[in-house]
Amino acid sequence: MSDVRAYAAQSSTSGVAPFAIDRRELRPDDVDIAIEFCGICHTDIHFVNNDWGATVYPVVPGHEIIGRVRAVGDQVSGFNVGDRVGVGCLVDSCRDCDSCHDGLEQYCENGMVTTYNGEDRHDGTPTFGGYSERIVVSDRFVLKVPDALDPAAAAPLLCAGITTYSPLKHFGVDKSHRVGVVGMGGLGHMGVKFARALGAEVTLFTRSESKVNEAKRQGAHHVVISTDEAQMKAVAGQFDYILDTVPVAHDVNPYLAALKRDGTLIMVGMPEPINPPVDGGALIFARRRIAGSLIGGLPETQEMLDFCAEHDIVCDIEMLDIGNINEAYERMKKGDVRYRFVIDMATLGN
Amino acid sequence: MSDVRAYAAQSSTSGVAPFAIDRRELRPDDVDIAIEFCGICHTDIHFVNNDWGATVYPVVPGHEIIGRVRAVGDQVSGFNVGDRVGVGCLVDSCRDCDSCHDGLEQYCENGMVTTYNGEDRHDGTPTFGGYSERIVVSDRFVLKVPDALDPAAAAPLLCAGITTYSPLKHFGVDKSHRVGVVGMGGLGHMGVKFARALGAEVTLFTRSESKVNEAKRQGAHHVVISTDEAQMKAVAGQFDYILDTVPVAHDVNPYLAALKRDGTLIMVGMPEPINPPVDGGALIFARRRIAGSLIGGLPETQEMLDFCAEHDIVCDIEMLDIGNINEAYERMKKGDVRYRFVIDMATLGN
Repeated sequence: MSDVRAYAAQSSTSGVAPFAIDRRELRPDDVDIAIEFCGICHTDIHFVNNDWGATVYPVVPGHEIIGRVRAVGDQVSGFNVGDRVGVGCLVDSCRDCDSCHDGLEQYCENGMVTTYNGEDRHDGTPTFGGYSERIVVSDRFVLKVPDALDPAAAAPLLCAGITTYSPLKHFGVDKSHRVGVVGMGGLGHMGVKFARALGAEVTLFTRSESKVNEAKRQGAHHVVISTDEAQMKAVAGQFDYILDTVPVAHDVNPYLAALKRDGTLIMVGMPEPINPPVDGGALIFARRRIAGSLIGGLPETQEMLDFCAEHDIVCDIEMLDIGNINEAYERMKKGDVRYRFVIDMATLGN
Repeated sequence: MSDVRAYAAQSSTSGVAPFAIDRRELRPDDVDIAIEFCGICHTDIHFVNNDWGATVYPVVPGHEIIGRVRAVGDQVSGFNVGDRVGVGCLVDSCRDCDSCHDGLEQYCENGMVTTYNGEDRHDGTPTFGGYSERIVVSDRFVLKVPDALDPAAAAPLLCAGITTYSPLKHFGVDKSHRVGVVGMGGLGHMGVKFARALGAEVTLFTRSESKVNEAKRQGAHHVVISTDEAQMKAVAGQFDYILDTVPVAHDVNPYLAALKRDGTLIMVGMPEPINPPVDGGALIFARRRIAGSLIGGLPETQEMLDFCAEHDIVCDIEMLDIGNINEAYERMKKGDVRYRFVIDMATLGN
C-alpha cells in the first residue's frame, strides 16, 4: 500500500513539497480515510522548521483532517464506507492509564501518539499527517462528522475548535459567567464562538483596534484593547474565566488582574516559561488560578462536533491549493489569515 | 481610654519597644478584649522593618490574638464578659461586597481592614495589633475559642492555621487525595496536621534531612527531600494538591511536575513574582493549575477553631516574654523556632 501521495518537509529549510508515503495495511480496528480537507495549524510550521528540536524528517504535517471512509478493518463496527469522518491531533494512546480510561487520551500518562511526527505503538513506524490523500487510523481516534457541518470549515474544529471548547466545558462555562478571550486568531475566534454559544457574556481582548467590529461579528459582546491601560483598568476584577490563546510569550498579569475572586486564567497557547513572571500576589489576594489545557479527548471531541452542528458553528476559513502551501505559511507568520487555511486535498493530484 | 500598654516599632531600625496607645471607646458592636497571648508571624517582622514600604509608624504588630472579653457594646449579643475569644488578621471590611456577603471578608473588594497598620473605617485612626494588653474589635471579627483548646497554642491558628486550613477545605481535600506540603515552618507544620486530619495521604517536601522524623511526628506519611532529584522524580505525577507555604521566591516547577493531571499547586506564602518562571507546558500538558489563597473568612476561621477542638489540633509553640521579642525576631530570621513564638501578655507589665 505504498505510493500514497502526500506533501512533506525533508529538512528545516526545505519547505513542504510532494512526497510519496506508505500507509499501513488495515489492522482489524483501522479506518482507511480518503482525505478531502486538511486545516493548517501553526504547529505544522513549527514542526516543518524544527522550531522545537523534535522533528523527525521527512515530516508530513496536518492534524485537522476531514475525509470519507474508504475501507474498514474486520472489527470496526462504528464506521462504514462513505461516512464522513475526522481525525485530530492524536491517533493512538496507551488506552490503559487513568487518563485513557477517563476518555482524556490527550493526557495519556504513557504518551499519546500524535497524528504526525509520532511513532506507531505497534511497529514503531513514523506517523504521517493529513497533507496526504489518505490516512489509516484506529477507530477509537476517528470522529463522526455531522452532515450539517460544512466539511472544509469543520476541519479546524479538530484542533483549534476542541482546544478552546474543551476548557470552556471542563470549567463549566455557562450563562452565569463573564468570559474573556485573549487573541483573535484561529483559536481565539473559536473561543469567542463557543463561549457565546455556551451563554456567557463574552469579551475579546485584542491589541488591534482593527479587530473590534470583526470580534463583534464573531459573537463578542464587548472588545477591550489590551494595550489601553484605561480600558484594562475598567475591567479589573470582572471575569470568571479568561481563555488565553496567544501562542507566544506575553505578560499574563494584566489578565490576572481582570479576573474576579476565584477566577481562572486558562492558558492553551503557550507551552513555555511564563515570562514576565506571574504575580503571586494576584493569585493569593483574590484566590485566582492559572490553568492549562491541551486539545481534548476523543469523547469530548465528538461532543464538540455535535455541539457545532447543533449551534451552527464552524471555523472561518480560507481555502488553499496544496501547491501554494509555502506561501500560506509565510502569510500565517504575518497573521494574514482569517482564521484558518484549509487545504482542498483534491488539488493534491494537480 | 488611653494609656493601654503595648509594644511598638517607631522606625524601621528601632525594633519593638514599650509604647502607650489609645483603644477606642466601645461602639455598639464592639468587643473589648484583654489579651492573654499573641503569636508572632513573619509578617510582623516585615512591617516592623518596613520591608514592603507600607508601614505607618508607630506600628503595634500582632494578629494572632487570644484573650478574654472585658466588656461588650450595647448591641453585642454573641459574646459575654469572660468569654475566651480570638482575633486574627483582619478587624473590619466593607461588609457589602460579594466577598463580604460570602463570608470571605479577607477578599473584600473594597479592602479589608488589617488588624494592625490598617485604618479604621469609621474615624480613620490607625489600627494597632496584639502586642498589647487590650484590643477593641467589632463583633463580626471576633472568634469564639473552644474551651478544649490550649489558649496559647491556639493563638497562631488565627493566621498560620486558617491560612492552611482554608485552601485545603476550599479545594475539597479528603481521604481520596494525596496532598503535598512544601516547607515545614509555622504554616507548613499546620498544613501537615490539617491535611492529615482531613484524611489525605500527606507528604512533606523539605530541603532538610533533619526534618524527616519531625515531619512524621507531625502527621506526614512520607517525606521527600526536595533537593534530591531522584526523590523528586519518583513522585512525579503523584499529587492531587500541593500546598506551598514557602515565603520566599523559589522554583515551583518541580512541584508542578509532582502533580497529577488536574492537580493544583496552592500558593499561600509568596505574594511576589514567581521566579524562575512557571513552565506553561507543565500546566497545559496535564491540565494542572496554580492557585493562590489568603488566610480565611470569619465563618471559615470559626469552623477551623471548632475543627481544631474536635481533632485535638493546635500549633506547636515556644512561649516568649515580650521583653525578649527583638531576640525572638532574630531567631525567626534564622528559622530557629518550632514553630511559632507566642507572647505571654502577662509579661507586658514586668
